[in-house]
Amino acid sequence: MAGEVENIEKFIDEHLPSDKLKEVKRLLYGKELRSLEFPPGAQELAKAKEFELKGYACDAAIESTRSPRVVRIAGIQNKIVLSTSDPVSDQRDAIWAKISDIIKCAALCGVNVLCLQEAWTMPFAFCTREKQPWAEFAESVENGPTTKFLQQLAQQYNMVIISPILEREEDHGDILQNTAVIISNTGEVLGKTRKNHIPRVGDFNESTYYMEGNTGHPVFQTQFGKIAVNICYGRHHPQNWMMYGLNGAEIVFNPSATVGALSEPLWPIEARNAAIANSYFVCGINRVGTETFPNEFTSGDGRAAHKDFGHFYGSSYVAAPDGSRTPGLSRTQDGLIVAEVDLNLCRQVKDRWGFRMTQRLDLYAEELAEVVQPFWKPNIVN
Amino acid sequence: MAGEVENIEKFIDEHLPSDKLKEVKRLLYGKELRSLEFPPGAQELAKAKEFELKGYACDAAIESTRSPRVVRIAGIQNKIVLSTSDPVSDQRDAIWAKISDIIKCAALCGVNVLCLQEAWTMPFAFCTREKQPWAEFAESVENGPTTKFLQQLAQQYNMVIISPILEREEDHGDILQNTAVIISNTGEVLGKTRKNHIPRVGDFNESTYYMEGNTGHPVFQTQFGKIAVNICYGRHHPQNWMMYGLNGAEIVFNPSATVGALSEPLWPIEARNAAIANSYFVCGINRVGTETFPNEFTSGDGRAAHKDFGHFYGSSYVAAPDGSRTPGLSRTQDGLIVAEVDLNLCRQVKDRWGFRMTQRLDLYAEELAEVVQPFWKPNIVN
Repeated sequence: MAGEVENIEKFIDEHLPSDKLKEVKRLLYGKELRSLEFPPGAQELAKAKEFELKGYACDAAIESTRSPRVVRIAGIQNKIVLSTSDPVSDQRDAIWAKISDIIKCAALCGVNVLCLQEAWTMPFAFCTREKQPWAEFAESVENGPTTKFLQQLAQQYNMVIISPILEREEDHGDILQNTAVIISNTGEVLGKTRKNHIPRVGDFNESTYYMEGNTGHPVFQTQFGKIAVNICYGRHHPQNWMMYGLNGAEIVFNPSATVGALSEPLWPIEARNAAIANSYFVCGINRVGTETFPNEFTSGDGRAAHKDFGHFYGSSYVAAPDGSRTPGLSRTQDGLIVAEVDLNLCRQVKDRWGFRMTQRLDLYAEELAEVVQPFWKPNIVN
Repeated sequence: MAGEVENIEKFIDEHLPSDKLKEVKRLLYGKELRSLEFPPGAQELAKAKEFELKGYACDAAIESTRSPRVVRIAGIQNKIVLSTSDPVSDQRDAIWAKISDIIKCAALCGVNVLCLQEAWTMPFAFCTREKQPWAEFAESVENGPTTKFLQQLAQQYNMVIISPILEREEDHGDILQNTAVIISNTGEVLGKTRKNHIPRVGDFNESTYYMEGNTGHPVFQTQFGKIAVNICYGRHHPQNWMMYGLNGAEIVFNPSATVGALSEPLWPIEARNAAIANSYFVCGINRVGTETFPNEFTSGDGRAAHKDFGHFYGSSYVAAPDGSRTPGLSRTQDGLIVAEVDLNLCRQVKDRWGFRMTQRLDLYAEELAEVVQPFWKPNIVN
């Protein structure tokens, strides 16, 4: 089914009458974003390695007291490479090799901050409810092989790389976590941030594997702006997005893994709404492809046991604080989406709309303090 | 410009190839909603009085322990009638007369809960920054003529009517408020709820006229479900939407007045995101038409003084907790949008997605308590 309309924005582009297209696109996507030109080497690499490469620019007004702060941010969506029956280390190494090529392409495109998809080193095996061999993919944030692999690339390409992995926290008795590692462009680990909200829906049996994150809502000051990471299901929680904004994020990445039947009509809404409400850029990244597992499993929906997860529909995109957005990547193919953004737009939108100024956080702090009391009752007027 | 594409959903419907239309609409609007058939009398009235009439149904699964709770909710979008230079009482009476016809039509369509647009008895004169004659439109919630006018209709048609007006609070020294009056289907005033977030953007100089509302986030138990009202600019604040949800709302109305150049790409995103995040129905209502004022005013955007507000683009729609939505009303014409909704869908979506269960309000109560401290500093990792 996913192949019927390979890319919704492209489909609309190709089928609507050209004299009205500009207005239709304004209504659907906000102000028009320029397409970026990339060097031939980048395009050739994308073609040779069969991934989509798209880039757009979101400009801001010129200011008198601040220089433009133009950075290139990017997200990668990708299929797994080997069979899920292959040895864990082989599966991981094959994904590393694929991602290594796409990161090289990102470097050729001048990307400054790059985010990979959720649990990027592995298939999204939480549908199986099996602990082995999937827990073997978990590794240390600080010393794990994936961090070491990316540290070298981050330094080589002078690129901040966000690496969302299944974390094994050895110091706390081998607890598993769903964690994003922030690797600075110097190659150092700047920090980590965990998934705050864990789904229990459909094949997303993630609460079987890890608990709610305990790192709060940190924002990381990089050379290329203040960034944060809202992992996957956290995108359904506006208060989660809000806290990253309150802590000063200018760009929030949302590495995700979600499937068509469950969430696809929600996908263009939630991350974009977060960009609007919080006056920051959002880069929403979704896994792509259909993954099949060695043993059959059930999905809690009356269907017979089966071995395949639903289709991860990709469609990664970038949304801007002024409500504009890029088209999405393909619903079926690997891809690299690049956005050149002027971070000055964040404050310009704040100054214009005043959402932070009118936010009345004191009111909500007070009300929430009441709501969380065990014997609280809702305010219902009869 | 607004007339170029009179209705974006209809335009897409008419221009995309029919074999792909079903899939495109699923991606853009979620599950397909049935069109409602209305009695000939309703259709004739709409035709005679030149307003658009549209209706859709959003079904829910049949449950064993609860009967379906099917109600019809509706919103009205309308232009003002007379010139803004006419006497205030004439202007108001002319709008009353127009709305009286549309409410009659809603009754013929079996509507149970109806919401009018923001400050519905008047032009949206806050662009002028003049206090006279516009403050004359303000009236008492409890005893004002507009409340009396609607109480009679509410009782006659057995319909809950939400009446967003400019309120004059005489008991507190003639303070003006932006307030929605909830009139029960018995004709009694069930209560009132005020606009919590006041804009200071573009021609929306509303902080010149009234202050932030002090009624919190009440939910009103009616015979047709638990309802709340998030007035206009409050839709930009996810925490405002959230509090109505925490207090148990099943339907939240968002009576608004907003113009194309400022907010149109945001309009389909925000109310729909609120429906998704909070597992309730939302009915977003926007004023329609272009209003011209007696004296020229400036808009803080470098343009010369002028007398016309930008175009209010209508496009009222209903969004469901499962992410589906109705098409919008026209961008240029008066209209009545009706949605038949099974309120059981709210809990079904909560049970499926678990957003309330995974909300971690204790975390946010704690973090917000810190954020509102005057010397708080954001959590930034260097």
